[in-house]
Amino acid sequence: MDSKRPLILISNDDGYQAKGINELTDFLRDMADIIVVAPDGPRSGMAAAITSQLPVTLSLISQTEGVALYKCSGTPVDCIKLGLETVVPRCPDIVIGGINHGDNSAVNVHYSGTMGVVLEGCMKSIPSIGFSVCDHDPDLDFTPTRTYVRNIVAQVLKKGLPVGTCLNVNFPKYAPYKGVKVCRQTIGRWEKEWVSIPHPRGGGSNLYWLTGNFANHEPQSTDTDRWALDNGYVSITPTQIDMTAYALLDEMKGWEF
Amino acid sequence: MDSKRPLILISNDDGYQAKGINELTDFLRDMADIIVVAPDGPRSGMAAAITSQLPVTLSLISQTEGVALYKCSGTPVDCIKLGLETVVPRCPDIVIGGINHGDNSAVNVHYSGTMGVVLEGCMKSIPSIGFSVCDHDPDLDFTPTRTYVRNIVAQVLKKGLPVGTCLNVNFPKYAPYKGVKVCRQTIGRWEKEWVSIPHPRGGGSNLYWLTGNFANHEPQSTDTDRWALDNGYVSITPTQIDMTAYALLDEMKGWEF
Repeated sequence: MDSKRPLILISNDDGYQAKGINELTDFLRDMADIIVVAPDGPRSGMAAAITSQLPVTLSLISQTEGVALYKCSGTPVDCIKLGLETVVPRCPDIVIGGINHGDNSAVNVHYSGTMGVVLEGCMKSIPSIGFSVCDHDPDLDFTPTRTYVRNIVAQVLKKGLPVGTCLNVNFPKYAPYKGVKVCRQTIGRWEKEWVSIPHPRGGGSNLYWLTGNFANHEPQSTDTDRWALDNGYVSITPTQIDMTAYALLDEMKGWEF
Repeated sequence: MDSKRPLILISNDDGYQAKGINELTDFLRDMADIIVVAPDGPRSGMAAAITSQLPVTLSLISQTEGVALYKCSGTPVDCIKLGLETVVPRCPDIVIGGINHGDNSAVNVHYSGTMGVVLEGCMKSIPSIGFSVCDHDPDLDFTPTRTYVRNIVAQVLKKGLPVGTCLNVNFPKYAPYKGVKVCRQTIGRWEKEWVSIPHPRGGGSNLYWLTGNFANHEPQSTDTDRWALDNGYVSITPTQIDMTAYALLDEMKGWEF
């Protein structure tokens, strides 16, 4: 790897064979050296989970001009932790999660393995970006995201990001996009989340599949990531790892313990 | 269940057989009806992970006066989602995660399955509290936490919590405690996180175990959860589900896309 070029560490939660992560690598390979350390299979919905009970494995899959690809048996966060400690020749300039097949706006930031990647990079004080498209199609055409991805990465390479902050970028399902909105996280929640069927082996128990609908509790607010996406804009939600509720902290100084 | 008593939904990430969740239930059973929906085994470090690819199962283990206990094959967050949609007779007054065997202060909030439980309750607009002790001993003596747990739960039952906020309560390893500090999340990071050994079957690959040390980047700050815990105080970190970095949001309005 050329130590004069920027270095980007990439992972995802769809696995190293997913189209999104391979498209992302292609979009960026002329801009930087790239190391991919990605799960060996799908890890959607893994959030910032870590593998605490068992060991994980790491294998080099391919090494070509400026791009090294590893698979890891752990979670998306494990991939970043292991990549940073055992693979990279120097501290990466950026950590990227994605491109995810599926929406990571609003409260999905908490469930997303892609954003787990990004939060982990951020916790290591590396500028970090998550890219997601609001479409689960495994054969999705990522071409419309290309210019935006390159532009956002170029600006973060140039300007950096404040320590403790990262970017959660989501693309609408349908292109062409109308432009970019810098947004806040939408207030809302998932509802009707379970589909159940009697266990095929009988015995009176059920099997439950997680599904559901996201209810936007502030559909009229035009400064949210869901509004941007619902109206054809690419959303960028600046995100932070400090989850302290400072207003409540002040209020609780009056509590008695 | 008595519809005039408060209702508390409890889960954890150590599994329904862990001492911490059973002690918690005993501490609170005279104050409220209790429904426990907990993982069928350890799920430490599962964060807010959800089971997205496979179905999960739910089984009633026991039902005694005012306490119903269920086990679930899914993640801590699955337990809350499934408990709320299929088990509870009415909306719980509080959701509680814990008592966890292990520290969930500082950035651990992002990795913790116990805090996954709490964030999920919070996302459903239910006042939610996580309790954790900075000690992984499975036979830990939880007695010193009892009065604090009951006091904090009683105050949250009385006062509620602002929508979108929850509490991350941690107890020091050693009792007696000096009192309670309401704190912010400590800035710091995990370091030297991997121990590797050659794979016992040979072949030149390694197995990697996640471990590491937490480095507090602001040890002199006396308003953080790590400071409180290191100095013998019970820490309460008010926590929010809105992860928007508002300062960066303002700054990025000057970026060009």
